[in-house]
Amino acid sequence: MTLKEQYINIRSHTETLCKPLRNEDYVSQPVYFASPPKWHLAHLTWFFEEFVVKTFKKDYQVINAQFNFLFNSYYNHAGKRVQRSNRGGIIRPTVEEVFEYRKYIDEVMLDLIDTLDDPVFKELVILGLNHEQQHQELFMTDLKHTWGHSPTWPIYDQKADLVNSPCGKLGSVKINEGLYKIGYNGDGFCFDNELGRHQVYLNSFEISTALISNAEFIEFIQDGGYQNFNCWLDEGWTWINEQDVQAPLYWIKQDDQWWNYTLAGLKPVQYGAAVCHLSFFEAWAFAEWSGKRLPTEFEWEVAADQFDWGTRWEWTNSAYLPYPNFKKAPGAIGEYNGKFMINQMVLRGASVVTALNHSRKTYRNFFHPPERWQFTGLRIANDI
Amino acid sequence: MTLKEQYINIRSHTETLCKPLRNEDYVSQPVYFASPPKWHLAHLTWFFEEFVVKTFKKDYQVINAQFNFLFNSYYNHAGKRVQRSNRGGIIRPTVEEVFEYRKYIDEVMLDLIDTLDDPVFKELVILGLNHEQQHQELFMTDLKHTWGHSPTWPIYDQKADLVNSPCGKLGSVKINEGLYKIGYNGDGFCFDNELGRHQVYLNSFEISTALISNAEFIEFIQDGGYQNFNCWLDEGWTWINEQDVQAPLYWIKQDDQWWNYTLAGLKPVQYGAAVCHLSFFEAWAFAEWSGKRLPTEFEWEVAADQFDWGTRWEWTNSAYLPYPNFKKAPGAIGEYNGKFMINQMVLRGASVVTALNHSRKTYRNFFHPPERWQFTGLRIANDI
Amino acid sequence: MTLKEQYINIRSHTETLCKPLRNEDYVSQPVYFASPPKWHLAHLTWFFEEFVVKTFKKDYQVINAQFNFLFNSYYNHAGKRVQRSNRGGIIRPTVEEVFEYRKYIDEVMLDLIDTLDDPVFKELVILGLNHEQQHQELFMTDLKHTWGHSPTWPIYDQKADLVNSPCGKLGSVKINEGLYKIGYNGDGFCFDNELGRHQVYLNSFEISTALISNAEFIEFIQDGGYQNFNCWLDEGWTWINEQDVQAPLYWIKQDDQWWNYTLAGLKPVQYGAAVCHLSFFEAWAFAEWSGKRLPTEFEWEVAADQFDWGTRWEWTNSAYLPYPNFKKAPGAIGEYNGKFMINQMVLRGASVVTALNHSRKTYRNFFHPPERWQFTGLRIANDI
Amino acid sequence: MTLKEQYINIRSHTETLCKPLRNEDYVSQPVYFASPPKWHLAHLTWFFEEFVVKTFKKDYQVINAQFNFLFNSYYNHAGKRVQRSNRGGIIRPTVEEVFEYRKYIDEVMLDLIDTLDDPVFKELVILGLNHEQQHQELFMTDLKHTWGHSPTWPIYDQKADLVNSPCGKLGSVKINEGLYKIGYNGDGFCFDNELGRHQVYLNSFEISTALISNAEFIEFIQDGGYQNFNCWLDEGWTWINEQDVQAPLYWIKQDDQWWNYTLAGLKPVQYGAAVCHLSFFEAWAFAEWSGKRLPTEFEWEVAADQFDWGTRWEWTNSAYLPYPNFKKAPGAIGEYNGKFMINQMVLRGASVVTALNHSRKTYRNFFHPPERWQFTGLRIANDI
Repeated sequence: MTLKEQYINIRSHTETLCKPLRNEDYVSQPVYFASPPKWHLAHLTWFFEEFVVKTFKKDYQVINAQFNFLFNSYYNHAGKRVQRSNRGGIIRPTVEEVFEYRKYIDEVMLDLIDTLDDPVFKELVILGLNHEQQHQELFMTDLKHTWGHSPTWPIYDQKADLVNSPCGKLGSVKINEGLYKIGYNGDGFCFDNELGRHQVYLNSFEISTALISNAEFIEFIQDGGYQNFNCWLDEGWTWINEQDVQAPLYWIKQDDQWWNYTLAGLKPVQYGAAVCHLSFFEAWAFAEWSGKRLPTEFEWEVAADQFDWGTRWEWTNSAYLPYPNFKKAPGAIGEYNGKFMINQMVLRGASVVTALNHSRKTYRNFFHPPERWQFTGLRIANDI
Repeated sequence: MTLKEQYINIRSHTETLCKPLRNEDYVSQPVYFASPPKWHLAHLTWFFEEFVVKTFKKDYQVINAQFNFLFNSYYNHAGKRVQRSNRGGIIRPTVEEVFEYRKYIDEVMLDLIDTLDDPVFKELVILGLNHEQQHQELFMTDLKHTWGHSPTWPIYDQKADLVNSPCGKLGSVKINEGLYKIGYNGDGFCFDNELGRHQVYLNSFEISTALISNAEFIEFIQDGGYQNFNCWLDEGWTWINEQDVQAPLYWIKQDDQWWNYTLAGLKPVQYGAAVCHLSFFEAWAFAEWSGKRLPTEFEWEVAADQFDWGTRWEWTNSAYLPYPNFKKAPGAIGEYNGKFMINQMVLRGASVVTALNHSRKTYRNFFHPPERWQFTGLRIANDI
Repeated sequence: MTLKEQYINIRSHTETLCKPLRNEDYVSQPVYFASPPKWHLAHLTWFFEEFVVKTFKKDYQVINAQFNFLFNSYYNHAGKRVQRSNRGGIIRPTVEEVFEYRKYIDEVMLDLIDTLDDPVFKELVILGLNHEQQHQELFMTDLKHTWGHSPTWPIYDQKADLVNSPCGKLGSVKINEGLYKIGYNGDGFCFDNELGRHQVYLNSFEISTALISNAEFIEFIQDGGYQNFNCWLDEGWTWINEQDVQAPLYWIKQDDQWWNYTLAGLKPVQYGAAVCHLSFFEAWAFAEWSGKRLPTEFEWEVAADQFDWGTRWEWTNSAYLPYPNFKKAPGAIGEYNGKFMINQMVLRGASVVTALNHSRKTYRNFFHPPERWQFTGLRIANDI
Repeated sequence: MTLKEQYINIRSHTETLCKPLRNEDYVSQPVYFASPPKWHLAHLTWFFEEFVVKTFKKDYQVINAQFNFLFNSYYNHAGKRVQRSNRGGIIRPTVEEVFEYRKYIDEVMLDLIDTLDDPVFKELVILGLNHEQQHQELFMTDLKHTWGHSPTWPIYDQKADLVNSPCGKLGSVKINEGLYKIGYNGDGFCFDNELGRHQVYLNSFEISTALISNAEFIEFIQDGGYQNFNCWLDEGWTWINEQDVQAPLYWIKQDDQWWNYTLAGLKPVQYGAAVCHLSFFEAWAFAEWSGKRLPTEFEWEVAADQFDWGTRWEWTNSAYLPYPNFKKAPGAIGEYNGKFMINQMVLRGASVVTALNHSRKTYRNFFHPPERWQFTGLRIANDI
């Protein structure tokens, strides 16, 4: 695919995701961390405007001077911005105007792609497209959170519940003690946090080829896992007690049966599917209860070729920290990843709402230990 | 006007207020106390459904069993409800469905009005219409709050800023010491909190015939009123310091000039207009600074025939408490007023967004001391 | 008693209250509103130093320049001060040094009392003594709060539980409709908030001669009073649910029996004693449940000669607001009362820890509706 | 030294630390994380009582059945306990009673040491002594926090400011790429988190032989380090802005000169001393500003023999996570370390208030990124 085709495809996929939405669905933001669809949509256009168009388009005229303030996410280099928790308060521009903004920038972008032969430009376009794909996933998980916390549990697509993914083949893989290479190694795109390919020494370990299933997780619940402090990290124990957490996110019990909110509405929890919407704390607790442990991100990466993965983000017991020789890019782009390397845990794999080309075994996703609105699950490992 | 005409007129006025809105304007709720338009709209229909239709319409079929949970405001008798702060999270029903709900109930109501000759029914219809009119005002003040805190300051109606109301004739009125009657006395509708007409003994006092103007309030600001603890109640002083309050709500200073957000957009503050959007604390502080005081609600009511009033809610120095012989109605209707008689101060008068027939001198409005998103101002009084 | 005798007696009573304390009891402040004993002790001396000694003692040398910052309570005129919530963090001066400070100022004060014949001086000394007596009560109620929330429920005085006070004679008094005089009228000391003697018109009412007993309050509890929204003001209902309030402060249920923490330790609740440690919300709810209401402060004052009162502060349904012609004194003394006239309700009567000469029927005590660490109870009234 | 001598020495050192305290210094707890001296003192005795005496002393009679509830820190296995934030509310037992408790348990312990020859017993005694030594450090840092936030900045020991420690020899050490062994390897005591000796592969790096000095840190401040978002992790930037952090803890600027509160009172900051009381965020920011980085805990451990260390806890860029083969002990002892392995960063080295035998290069200390009331500093490293 040419860059132009990629641009058109990926940008158009974002619009496809918007199809089921009414205009009134674009704005509400009941919790600070789940941005409304209108904001995602405008921010994705802003990213190209701010980091590509303003640099490469001669005599570029901004469509609206306020958009930089409204739709900058977290780039201090790009100036002041609306607080994350206030994105739902952005009454104007209207949805229609946000689509016009999109069209305006797309025209400029396509013209630049046709006419510019600059490797820096191309690199930034590719970054912007990868950025857009990351937000496509967030668009869906944020929407699910907002809708899943709405008292009427709206339906996004009756045909796609998006949670009944298989666990993979039962069994385990053994990996011998030794030195292994970690980090991205190839010609394609990757994020800066995957670079700095380096060696790590691993002790021998065994890792499951299957994700933990809903049936297994229900066993944990029924065995009193959420009431047994022995299973929990201290901050996890505090968290479940303060937040009254007693099951994965979106699960409710009705008539002695587990149901869960999905984007196809309220559905019975499927026993054979991979458990979903766990926090790190819950994943860790399950592993502890099972007598095993979470793999590290390095163990996961080394073993990943030997099992199927890709419909859950899998919590690892590795903190999100820089690889040796990690380099922060200068300027705003340097804020993309590096400044978040604290207090977050690494997830490996990919989810059902992850863009296909984001499914690479070196990809490092990261969230805070209590967060669970992504499509997160786990597999377990143990020392041997 | 017949009851039917009243019903049609008042209900249709609510829809008129919605005219300038796009669908995406109906849902956001950035702060807990300012409900979104969709919720107001549905709640007003719910009020008739819950308190009239369900009682008087035989074999009534609810259009949606969840609406009682979604659109009950604060009536414990009517069952559980969505928390006030979560009204912005009600994704469904859509705006269209809320209008359909309105139409559905209106048809039932009009049929009942045509066919029923029951004084209890009529009383409840009239209460529902007065309720709707109160919400028409809240609809506007909540909208102004949401839009006025949006970074782009949207315009509702370019021709109606709604704040440049005159102060009234300069001067003052003297009232002699003596016994006066307080409370509603007539045949028309009034709220239960106006009843219990009773005598109060007033000392002699003087009250201004004009509201305080923006020019006067700017003088207070320029004299350091917001920095002078002598002007403030202790809780007011804490409030302005914690919230960093330095001017009336919606005011901002640009290039040494005061501007304010209005529903017609950002406009210069007009010196001659009555000051607007003050908290009780600010009104009290201004009065203290001026060497006078706020009137009590009884002084206001006794003197009200002798000055023009009606474009500002005027803070009084009376707490919102029951009149002698106040009676709480049985059941849900008893929750309308009585349970709020604590920690609030009485406002008298009426604002530019108050329904005309709510402009009666015995009407008791009430808000908490720091609240100022209503169209609030003050006039001053003194002992003589 | 001469002024000197009064000074010696009242000051020495404060020291008597300290007798049962160990040094380590003087400093802890687990909640912001209950000041530690060391702070009370030092503040009382500071009051005389700041408002009397600094004005009337020539060439006065302060014992420690920091004490004004440390022991000023809320007088903005006296300069900056430690935040109320941080009083427990005042490690130094030691308890011994605070007693030395006391002795130092007492010597100056006694010398001034002997030598000065200035009415302004005398007035301030009397104010300081009344202030000290108010704090003697707070000293005890704050101590009870701190100790009553300590896991080991320490004993202050095994012989004095201080809560088993009688309710008074059963029955009621009827007062006829008419004009009554309200406010202090005499030659002795009173606070500024009692002045401005004025007429009020009262409707006929009946008021109980007895306080509500523990037995009656237990009946309210057993009838589900704390679970019945009909009994509560809206903010009261929110308060009991958010704070999980199910009984008066210090009450706990053990083996189906009510106990309460007293300054003599944990004791069974005595059925015949007057109920104690109620918030305004609970007092209001009880009255509502009983089918009657709280009296207003005016009703209470008018009827007070016809019943015994004085071992409970009695909640009234009057907001704490200025009387007509209320005058704020100039300077710091003006901050004593007036600036608190918002969001508080008036209590009349006196408690078992109130100084005797504070037991006058015009005395206006005031607290916020949820507060209940004073020795508070209620009597009920009704319209006739 | 025999176990008995060790026991006597270490226990007696705790009492030595108490010498400068008045009884009223033992109880205040202005912030939840800094426990009061009385609590530390009692908790240390409780540790021996709960984990040793109750197991090994036949027919042991507890001195007070409440002490387990009062003085258990965080052991869920040992039952319910006072919340950490409420330790300052433990009015009783008195200081005297806490010393009696100490004496009571010491007698039992010394008798057991004399008579028991059980390796499990000895292991637990040694753990208890190491625990006591850890708390000796916390006793001092908690005291410094409480006193350093008191408005009068009390003095603990005029001769020991405890912060003017040297930085060590200027220069750097280079370590070659390769496999290194990490973790404790010896016969003495170590904590479970140091075990699981294992290999790690390190890239070549260089590490400074000197700690960062106050002079260097002042240069960072003067260069606008606290105002430059480029230097900070995102959560660090939020933290300094929300908390208004502009210098290390205890520093204040007076007359254009930096002073800091020390346990000897307020003193000028010494330029040549090692910077102290930094959070991880500040240490990270300094390193970023300097163009280098923090070492990992593995780099630190491998290089530690080649530089002097030991008067600062040094922040590393390693998250506190288990080593391979980490084993949690069964029962309460298993709660000692493992359950805290989330959201904390590792510190290596030792401080001036660390017990001598806790200064081993494999020791893993850990705190949350914003915490800085320990004696924390940094050295820097870089890739080569």
